[in-house]
Amino acid sequence: MDPYAAAERLDGRIHRTPILGCTALDRWAGRSLALKCENLQKTGSFKIRGATNAVLRLPPGVQHVIAASSGNFGQALALAAREAGLRCTVVVPRDAPAVKMAAMRGYGAELVLCEPTLEGRRSTLKEQVAATGAQEMPSFDHPHVIEGQGSVAVELLQQVPGLDSVIAPIGGGGLIGGIALACRDTGVRVFAGEPFGADEAWRSKKAGVRIQEPNPETVVRDHVEAVVRVTDEEIVEAMKLCWERAKLVIEPSAAVALAAAKKLPADCHDVGVVLSGGNVDLGALPF
Amino acid sequence: MDPYAAAERLDGRIHRTPILGCTALDRWAGRSLALKCENLQKTGSFKIRGATNAVLRLPPGVQHVIAASSGNFGQALALAAREAGLRCTVVVPRDAPAVKMAAMRGYGAELVLCEPTLEGRRSTLKEQVAATGAQEMPSFDHPHVIEGQGSVAVELLQQVPGLDSVIAPIGGGGLIGGIALACRDTGVRVFAGEPFGADEAWRSKKAGVRIQEPNPETVVRDHVEAVVRVTDEEIVEAMKLCWERAKLVIEPSAAVALAAAKKLPADCHDVGVVLSGGNVDLGALPF
Repeated sequence: MDPYAAAERLDGRIHRTPILGCTALDRWAGRSLALKCENLQKTGSFKIRGATNAVLRLPPGVQHVIAASSGNFGQALALAAREAGLRCTVVVPRDAPAVKMAAMRGYGAELVLCEPTLEGRRSTLKEQVAATGAQEMPSFDHPHVIEGQGSVAVELLQQVPGLDSVIAPIGGGGLIGGIALACRDTGVRVFAGEPFGADEAWRSKKAGVRIQEPNPETVVRDHVEAVVRVTDEEIVEAMKLCWERAKLVIEPSAAVALAAAKKLPADCHDVGVVLSGGNVDLGALPF
Repeated sequence: MDPYAAAERLDGRIHRTPILGCTALDRWAGRSLALKCENLQKTGSFKIRGATNAVLRLPPGVQHVIAASSGNFGQALALAAREAGLRCTVVVPRDAPAVKMAAMRGYGAELVLCEPTLEGRRSTLKEQVAATGAQEMPSFDHPHVIEGQGSVAVELLQQVPGLDSVIAPIGGGGLIGGIALACRDTGVRVFAGEPFGADEAWRSKKAGVRIQEPNPETVVRDHVEAVVRVTDEEIVEAMKLCWERAKLVIEPSAAVALAAAKKLPADCHDVGVVLSGGNVDLGALPF
């Protein structure tokens, strides 16, 4: 897994997203924050990185890809496949938001609806693979996806020399795993943000073993300094502050990283915060 | 009035705001849009440009400035004065939003409340000037303010070579006037956006004379190609699209420019859109 090679592979195919700063956020966090704006990325999240890298690393001859997703990864794969000239099918729970389905179709994907259960998703995916011969794509724990996500840190370190730390939401582990890989030999400290109530990563880190699938890679265990947990109130506060003062629309997972950035050790002075995405339903805001 | 000299004067004192693009907005508008992000400017709007330029061009010896404002200009002047080491008083209608008052105080201004009428504002301002000897600052129609606002176009033309057109909201005329000045000898076409129902500028442009005070400068009459009027529905559509797809928080005046950018002549292909500000009450969204 090489996030640096992935960054070169992705160059020109995805946005090199800007770094923004905000004095009000710096004051709030008590440190200097470099906001890596993956909310401004194609498809509205970092997931286009892993999806595009994985598509580009497919064996020759693959014409059709398939994955199960209700959200950002489905959009990312749909666009990555279209750009590569591949057919794309996404298995979607039938109660997924209509706006997300419309976005996937907008990027040219064919949707197959399934029961909104893990079993429904698995069996429908299996049927579709059998029926179409499509290549199944993993969503977050495959090396090609992880190294693709890590390209965000490669860019961040190039764009902001002198960072002492980077923080990102832990999610499924692919993003933070890729970031940890990219930062491994740089001396830059890597932290993960995680909501209380979704704290598998925190418990895995403490236990030193994987608690549960899906979970972060061992690279997280070995190269992430700490998993910083945040409350729902802290997430909403960070999200509102980002909208109001930084004028950036971010989704809750990005707000997790921002909220956690405020709670880092006092000697984290120059922190890169990966604002992982901006896909949010404006009709269902928490404020 | 020289926006180019103003841009040099402001260099390093305000943000050189980024240019962002968004494929979805381009598709919607039917042309390529370069978004000049004054919503990411200090104090959340372009007004810091004119305020800072005007403060820097004050005669020597001025220690205290004063203005009447209920909103963005008051915040901008407060910050510009503080950065220049000047005392600042803002006369504010007593029904102005608490959040705006708090922001002005946050930038170090002293607030004097007045009756929320034109007469109350005038008389209170006059009393305060008499009592304190403070230098009264004009908000939008003074040459030092106009050339300061024009610096946004100087940057935009540097940042995006090859633009054929620029559009901005008309507001009080200072922003569009400064932009028109900056673009005068460049061959770049200048357009203004204006809501129906606030169409003094459109009528002035049609009549070739000033309809009413406050109004745009004659430079607008002579150098703005057209005033494009947009409906409330078009403004809300543009604002929502910008939030949802470009992930940028913009205020309604910025959405006026964006909505108008969709309605430009068909031969406007590469358009700079001045997103004038991002100060909006998240609790009172139109969607």
